[in-house]
Amino acid sequence: MVNKTVKELAEHVGGVVVGDENLEVTGAATLSEAGPGDVSFLANLKYEKDLATTGASVVVAGEAVSATDKTLIHCKDPYYGFMQIVVLLYGHREHEKVGVSPRAGVDPTATIGDNVDIHDFVVVSHDARIGDNTRIYPNCTIGPGTTIGCDCIIYPNVTIYDGCTIGDRVTIHSGSVIGQDGFGYATHDGVHHKIPQIGGVVIEDDVEIGANCAIDRGTLGDTVIGKGCKFSNLIAIGHNTRIGPYSLLVAQVGIAGSVLVGHHCVFGGQVGVVGHIKIGDEVRIGAQAGVINDVADRQAIVGSPSMPITQAKRSLTLLKDLPDFRKKLRELDKSLRQLLKGS
Amino acid sequence: MVNKTVKELAEHVGGVVVGDENLEVTGAATLSEAGPGDVSFLANLKYEKDLATTGASVVVAGEAVSATDKTLIHCKDPYYGFMQIVVLLYGHREHEKVGVSPRAGVDPTATIGDNVDIHDFVVVSHDARIGDNTRIYPNCTIGPGTTIGCDCIIYPNVTIYDGCTIGDRVTIHSGSVIGQDGFGYATHDGVHHKIPQIGGVVIEDDVEIGANCAIDRGTLGDTVIGKGCKFSNLIAIGHNTRIGPYSLLVAQVGIAGSVLVGHHCVFGGQVGVVGHIKIGDEVRIGAQAGVINDVADRQAIVGSPSMPITQAKRSLTLLKDLPDFRKKLRELDKSLRQLLKGS
Amino acid sequence: MVNKTVKELAEHVGGVVVGDENLEVTGAATLSEAGPGDVSFLANLKYEKDLATTGASVVVAGEAVSATDKTLIHCKDPYYGFMQIVVLLYGHREHEKVGVSPRAGVDPTATIGDNVDIHDFVVVSHDARIGDNTRIYPNCTIGPGTTIGCDCIIYPNVTIYDGCTIGDRVTIHSGSVIGQDGFGYATHDGVHHKIPQIGGVVIEDDVEIGANCAIDRGTLGDTVIGKGCKFSNLIAIGHNTRIGPYSLLVAQVGIAGSVLVGHHCVFGGQVGVVGHIKIGDEVRIGAQAGVINDVADRQAIVGSPSMPITQAKRSLTLLKDLPDFRKKLRELDKSLRQLLKGS
Repeated sequence: MVNKTVKELAEHVGGVVVGDENLEVTGAATLSEAGPGDVSFLANLKYEKDLATTGASVVVAGEAVSATDKTLIHCKDPYYGFMQIVVLLYGHREHEKVGVSPRAGVDPTATIGDNVDIHDFVVVSHDARIGDNTRIYPNCTIGPGTTIGCDCIIYPNVTIYDGCTIGDRVTIHSGSVIGQDGFGYATHDGVHHKIPQIGGVVIEDDVEIGANCAIDRGTLGDTVIGKGCKFSNLIAIGHNTRIGPYSLLVAQVGIAGSVLVGHHCVFGGQVGVVGHIKIGDEVRIGAQAGVINDVADRQAIVGSPSMPITQAKRSLTLLKDLPDFRKKLRELDKSLRQLLKGS
Repeated sequence: MVNKTVKELAEHVGGVVVGDENLEVTGAATLSEAGPGDVSFLANLKYEKDLATTGASVVVAGEAVSATDKTLIHCKDPYYGFMQIVVLLYGHREHEKVGVSPRAGVDPTATIGDNVDIHDFVVVSHDARIGDNTRIYPNCTIGPGTTIGCDCIIYPNVTIYDGCTIGDRVTIHSGSVIGQDGFGYATHDGVHHKIPQIGGVVIEDDVEIGANCAIDRGTLGDTVIGKGCKFSNLIAIGHNTRIGPYSLLVAQVGIAGSVLVGHHCVFGGQVGVVGHIKIGDEVRIGAQAGVINDVADRQAIVGSPSMPITQAKRSLTLLKDLPDFRKKLRELDKSLRQLLKGS
Repeated sequence: MVNKTVKELAEHVGGVVVGDENLEVTGAATLSEAGPGDVSFLANLKYEKDLATTGASVVVAGEAVSATDKTLIHCKDPYYGFMQIVVLLYGHREHEKVGVSPRAGVDPTATIGDNVDIHDFVVVSHDARIGDNTRIYPNCTIGPGTTIGCDCIIYPNVTIYDGCTIGDRVTIHSGSVIGQDGFGYATHDGVHHKIPQIGGVVIEDDVEIGANCAIDRGTLGDTVIGKGCKFSNLIAIGHNTRIGPYSLLVAQVGIAGSVLVGHHCVFGGQVGVVGHIKIGDEVRIGAQAGVINDVADRQAIVGSPSMPITQAKRSLTLLKDLPDFRKKLRELDKSLRQLLKGS
């Protein structure tokens, strides 16, 4: 944590100060939690009223936000500006330089790049390749023939199976497993026979995978996580599924095998997707949705089974009215019977 | 396992024997599985009829349960009494004293309390602190600057990141991850930029965390799991969420970020909760519910999206009647048309 | 990978060639991805039209599939035949012979069979038993008194607690946890008191467990996973649940405690099952279903709460019609009122 003036922050993000540019900023916080010395942000105008009550000394906000008694930094993309400020003030996690620990098990046939950190009790198997500046934290296992790129961070207790390919600047959080065998069996006379899982997993550049995820290797051909995708925790990806670049998956999403997902999709928490379907680009799927059919580009869907959000707003909100529907049906029925009897 | 007489058990739990106090008890089991020599319990009167058929020699039961041919131990809180008896007969798991293994990687700057067990291949990073009588099983990694209290049990393959605080008498089961970075990105021109995750995780005293859970660290400020909370397995908690004391979370619950949960809440299995909402005290949430709005104290809710259980009993049970509704609507429509034509 | 002729493949699976038996096969792929030299399969007649467009040189198909310009291998169970061919061409994963690593922590009281591989940083605790030809990958922990059978594969970072029993030819993928304490507490005066979890876990022969699963030990008596069951990833099984032989559980299934599941059941992804119910034999449960009552043999159920699939097809598909129902109800009501006013 370093202190900066409002002026320095504004210059860093290309913003314009409205108010006191000489204030000193000593921390960052959300509007509701900020106190004196803190910089905060207003990215969603829904929270504009919090400007009046926040304890923050300065707020990064869009140009449409008018001056109050708070100092503002006007910025085209205020959340992005705030992120840049948090990086400036606090930096990203620092990683101790440890080199290759003598207590790691690095196979002599493995290729280790420059400036690599391999912590205690890591296993790097035969013919694996670790790129420059990559750090592998304790108790990870890197399988035979697997390649990890440069500037990666592999946190403790991660397992990457044999024959996988991890790009550059990839972060994998603890407990995640990459490349276990997918769920492939041929059932014959009631017994399930294992199909060899020959494919691998390709994780492209700039991906971040949360904790305790599980990404199946491909049966024949690879499972692919596209460039810049971000996964939260406890996510399951089936064999041969391919996720397009820059997609976001919130916690506990499960995608079955051989699904094709486009770019810039957003999956809410606990979404499930059946196998062998195609989800287009920029699709948004609400939490807990169950997707069983192809989804066109730029659709927003919710529900299990899923439907367009516009339809769901009409349909699912009527669930609570079902008792009234029944009552009205009975009334109508009774009225009509009496009418028919009388006529 | 030690044998005890019915009299000894009754004295241990402050109960009153109805029947033969000299019977010897050699085990404990549920009513349906118990055999001669076993003590069992009747805590839910729904199962009272099982008293007639159980093979148990003695049953711990509420004072309202009348004598049968079974010996009873009358007890105000029979399930609690039974628990005390199981502890008396079997004890909790015993932990071998191993001290600090020479095959663990304990940083010289770490502070290790008295009577601590650190098993093989554990890493305790720089400036970490481990309290008295705490045991850390193999292949765990404790991050830099993290504090673990006294009398904790950390089972194998657990990862606790840097800067987290674990209270006293906390148990964490295998594979769980505490303090990974939360899901925080600022998206700019289609690229997701990581926001440094500066906060930590605070786990208060007497918490038990199941296997393969994942608890995000806070973005700014901490994620907090309150005193006496119990988590089952595969649970995901988002950054800056705060769970009040003595709440129970069943397996595969997912709670997004910045949620405020009260005390003594119960979350059924696979419940999902969106971010930035407030759940009151003593709230009960049914399995697989999807919670998207604030919940008042002492509400019981179910469904996705969730609704009060009283409403759901009326609404969701009518789902199966939808085909009948449609049929009746068509009949009414037809009758009315004929009537209108005829009139 | 070895090359084979169509004739050799047909002989291997007991199939009949329709076409050119001398073609050389150099790989295997799905119909849509296959190219020259590849063998593919047609197991589901839904995909029969793909026969016309596949690049495969030879297709394993049922006897009802008529000849095209493709060479066919007619086979009674084409998916099983294809699996046998994939095994013939590619084989299963090869495991390097490493013996017992001097960097593993094997307790002197443990019993290690012949031809066992124990990799670096594995802990085998006191009184554990490891059967012949079993391989345990790095960073696994095997608890005290646990028995693992012959020909097992335990992938990296697996934890098996004390007193568990693993059969022969069992595979457990990375990050899975077997035998953690179940979710058992007696709540007294608002505090949750832990009930000792005395039982174990029994995993019978030929089971495969995916990555990052969590199987609770029994409270009193065992949790049992029956012979030949196959689990995908991130599955939670509660204490004392017993799963019958040859059942299939897709990713993220959660089954609470004391559930009795029959043989040859299939659980779709993210299914949840409440505790203390009985699910019959050959039951099929659709993805995301929530099962709260006993299920008879050979039922197919879906939905949350679950219902027979035949009923669900009638009911759930009407959800989208609720707005129309409401509209029609209002029209009928209006017409009827006018009629009543007029009469």
